[in-house]
Amino acid sequence: MNSTSPINGKSYKVPAGNDKAGIESFINQNRGKKIVVVQGLGFVGAAMSLVVANSKEDYAVIGVDTATSEGYWKIASINGGELPLASSDIKLKQYFDNAKQKENIYATYDNLAYSLADVIIIDINLDVEKVLGDLNELQGYNVDLRKFKNAVCAVLNSCKEDVLVLVETTVPPGTCSKVIKPLVNEIFMERGLDVEKIKLAHSYERVMPGPNYIDSIENFYRVYSGINELSADAAESFLKTIIKTSEYPLTRLSNTNASEISKVLENSYRAMNIAFIQEWTELADAAGVDLYEVISAIRMRPTHKNIMRPGLGVGGYCLTKDPLLASWASQEMFHCRPLTQSVAAVTINDQMPLYSLKVLKERFGEGLKGTKVLFLGVSYLNDVGDTRFTPVELIYDQIKELGADVYLHDPYLSVWEEKGLPVEGELNLQSVDIVIVTVSHKQFISEEYFCYINKIKPEFILDTLGCYLSYEDKIDDKIELKIIGKGV
Amino acid sequence: MNSTSPINGKSYKVPAGNDKAGIESFINQNRGKKIVVVQGLGFVGAAMSLVVANSKEDYAVIGVDTATSEGYWKIASINGGELPLASSDIKLKQYFDNAKQKENIYATYDNLAYSLADVIIIDINLDVEKVLGDLNELQGYNVDLRKFKNAVCAVLNSCKEDVLVLVETTVPPGTCSKVIKPLVNEIFMERGLDVEKIKLAHSYERVMPGPNYIDSIENFYRVYSGINELSADAAESFLKTIIKTSEYPLTRLSNTNASEISKVLENSYRAMNIAFIQEWTELADAAGVDLYEVISAIRMRPTHKNIMRPGLGVGGYCLTKDPLLASWASQEMFHCRPLTQSVAAVTINDQMPLYSLKVLKERFGEGLKGTKVLFLGVSYLNDVGDTRFTPVELIYDQIKELGADVYLHDPYLSVWEEKGLPVEGELNLQSVDIVIVTVSHKQFISEEYFCYINKIKPEFILDTLGCYLSYEDKIDDKIELKIIGKGV
Repeated sequence: MNSTSPINGKSYKVPAGNDKAGIESFINQNRGKKIVVVQGLGFVGAAMSLVVANSKEDYAVIGVDTATSEGYWKIASINGGELPLASSDIKLKQYFDNAKQKENIYATYDNLAYSLADVIIIDINLDVEKVLGDLNELQGYNVDLRKFKNAVCAVLNSCKEDVLVLVETTVPPGTCSKVIKPLVNEIFMERGLDVEKIKLAHSYERVMPGPNYIDSIENFYRVYSGINELSADAAESFLKTIIKTSEYPLTRLSNTNASEISKVLENSYRAMNIAFIQEWTELADAAGVDLYEVISAIRMRPTHKNIMRPGLGVGGYCLTKDPLLASWASQEMFHCRPLTQSVAAVTINDQMPLYSLKVLKERFGEGLKGTKVLFLGVSYLNDVGDTRFTPVELIYDQIKELGADVYLHDPYLSVWEEKGLPVEGELNLQSVDIVIVTVSHKQFISEEYFCYINKIKPEFILDTLGCYLSYEDKIDDKIELKIIGKGV
Repeated sequence: MNSTSPINGKSYKVPAGNDKAGIESFINQNRGKKIVVVQGLGFVGAAMSLVVANSKEDYAVIGVDTATSEGYWKIASINGGELPLASSDIKLKQYFDNAKQKENIYATYDNLAYSLADVIIIDINLDVEKVLGDLNELQGYNVDLRKFKNAVCAVLNSCKEDVLVLVETTVPPGTCSKVIKPLVNEIFMERGLDVEKIKLAHSYERVMPGPNYIDSIENFYRVYSGINELSADAAESFLKTIIKTSEYPLTRLSNTNASEISKVLENSYRAMNIAFIQEWTELADAAGVDLYEVISAIRMRPTHKNIMRPGLGVGGYCLTKDPLLASWASQEMFHCRPLTQSVAAVTINDQMPLYSLKVLKERFGEGLKGTKVLFLGVSYLNDVGDTRFTPVELIYDQIKELGADVYLHDPYLSVWEEKGLPVEGELNLQSVDIVIVTVSHKQFISEEYFCYINKIKPEFILDTLGCYLSYEDKIDDKIELKIIGKGV
């Protein structure tokens, strides 16, 4: 079995057996240092490992992922000197090179690492399974905790009695107190350990994998809690060593339910505010109203400053599922009602790209067949090369199905990992019929891009998010420009 | 037929016949001045009349209301030197006294006023009829435009050809272009007038009937639009004479649909954000979480600063209906889908007081019968004596039905107009079983009130909105205090 890096295409053979020798060698090199193990080397865990390895405290960091085709390339990359993340944040590479030079970072698939740790940070994924209908409408969803519980058990079966386990994964509220704590009790009983010694805490990350990737961990506000005071104190002491708390003070909440709720509440709030404006976008287009000027007028009110603007849709790992985690927990963990506003938000957001498609279909009808369509942007977020749950997928799939030739361009990507599709980093078409602007990368608002678009002479530009709002005069008069939500 | 002022109890005989003599006498006194007529002397129109009468421009103001038991007392009050509004804003009385002294304000029920006006401001109500179920859940709603159209026709049948008609009423988007403009065309045709001469504009108010009542008109941002440039220009010129636009610049929107949408969008946004937190309040109580500390933690994020806090419910004339006006217009005026987030917001908000009731019932069960219950607050808003659609009504009705003796106290009220109930302005109970805090009037957070409550020794205080959050130590330890949303 091989594991291939989507970052640089390098392939690694997934090893069998243990990694005892590798771990012991690393430990010998880092004698006297506190050992921090990060479980999960994804977008959060990999960056977190680098932040910890570069903190003022003298930590030795071991990242753990799985010996699978999905997981092993991250381990091999870190140990082989290759950053397992693509990002526009130069700090990420600096931090990685620095840790490699200090030799205080290592990655493994061997659970032996947990037995050596003073701190274990849980950064694995916890997904929501959605059931979507033909119109991408949410028909149902489920949260399966088994994989998460298995990962926690791996930790608890090996860890020291007085370890600090810090959960950063976004979990359904109630997980630390109603799922992990009972596992601690059960496993520590079996192992003959004192359950009062372990420190179990929750502190959620607010990582933004863009140009401020590292700063979104080191230089941003943090919320934390523990299952008891001992745990909360331990979490606080640790977080103070990795976060600039003089400028971004920590907030301790009274219990783990509180900080777990805090995370999904803030993301539900954002998802709902995005969903809200979508329905008004369609109304504005129908009423011949420029929703952008309406929003500017409303934002004059201090109480309404963060009202959102129209867009293609919602992507990323968090906003597409956290409101459902919350509602699931409300019902399953606390026997409360579902959180209707949060579920409605996901439902509306999941369907949002279909509106841009509808506008396109109304303009071209059957005429889309055989047209050349250029997508400006594949990423779900501006100035980032991140395609996780990108809303571009839904509109891409449907336009392909209608028979258009689609060209994907994104300056931050060379490949659309989830689709296994190449993405052009360079502008290399000679002519095109339709341009769809799907994300507001800063490059797209530049003389270079305006000149290019005027040169390839599309018949129609669909700007799904007001990217060209102040630049309409840069586009050739002969090109028809439709900005979603600008009904006039 | 008599008409009685709810402010001071004075009763006036509703006149028959016209008011030609009264109007002519007023006009003679104000020769050479521009005449501004305000249609509707409610919470907006009465205050607007005072602002216009006190503007730097030399206007003569005629307020028009109906010769009915509901309307005539406002007319008689103004002409008799009595302010037809109760408010804590001292400017209101100053403005009224000043206008009475200058003799540039008059009120009438006679449509003759419209024929003399240079500017006519429409400030009448436009209500939504709700169908509510047994649990106060929204089962349906309707908007009946007939009354509004009749009022507009009264204006158009009498007005000058080149009058500026400025609509301030919150209307379903589309009203100016699809309802009023066709009426202009029809009536001006009949009257042989030039439809191109009339100026028809929309500018929505953001009046807050509290201590900054006048400032919420004079010193706040305004949005406006016209059915054509002539109309928008005329509205701008007029608004500049009554609003301090050097500090609060006006925002012109491209068409009347836009400013009509802007008003209901901003209120829907607020209603939705209030509704959102309600579902989390119930979850927080069930999960033993202090939602207030969670909200404080989340508000550290600049993007999440305006997340709302728990409360009893939503009242007032605007937030309880504007989202429905919006959704109705989306469907009926523009053949779009309903605005689901907006309708859901009203549904959740209408039911919100039942949660506080549930907490009380869970604590007392059948034991509520015969208990003495003191309500601190009847108004829907802090530091204001305004009972329109107050959420207190639902919880009051149900507690009465359960057999409790209810005492209403509100320092801003002597009467609950809609219920015809007296409200005690003074604290005059000797003992009580339950105190329910329903609104955060500043008086309630004072030594005087804390002493009083400790003296009357309630068994239980239900704080529905976190009023006592930082003052728990002021309350006697023997009194049980439950703050809604503070689950710990």
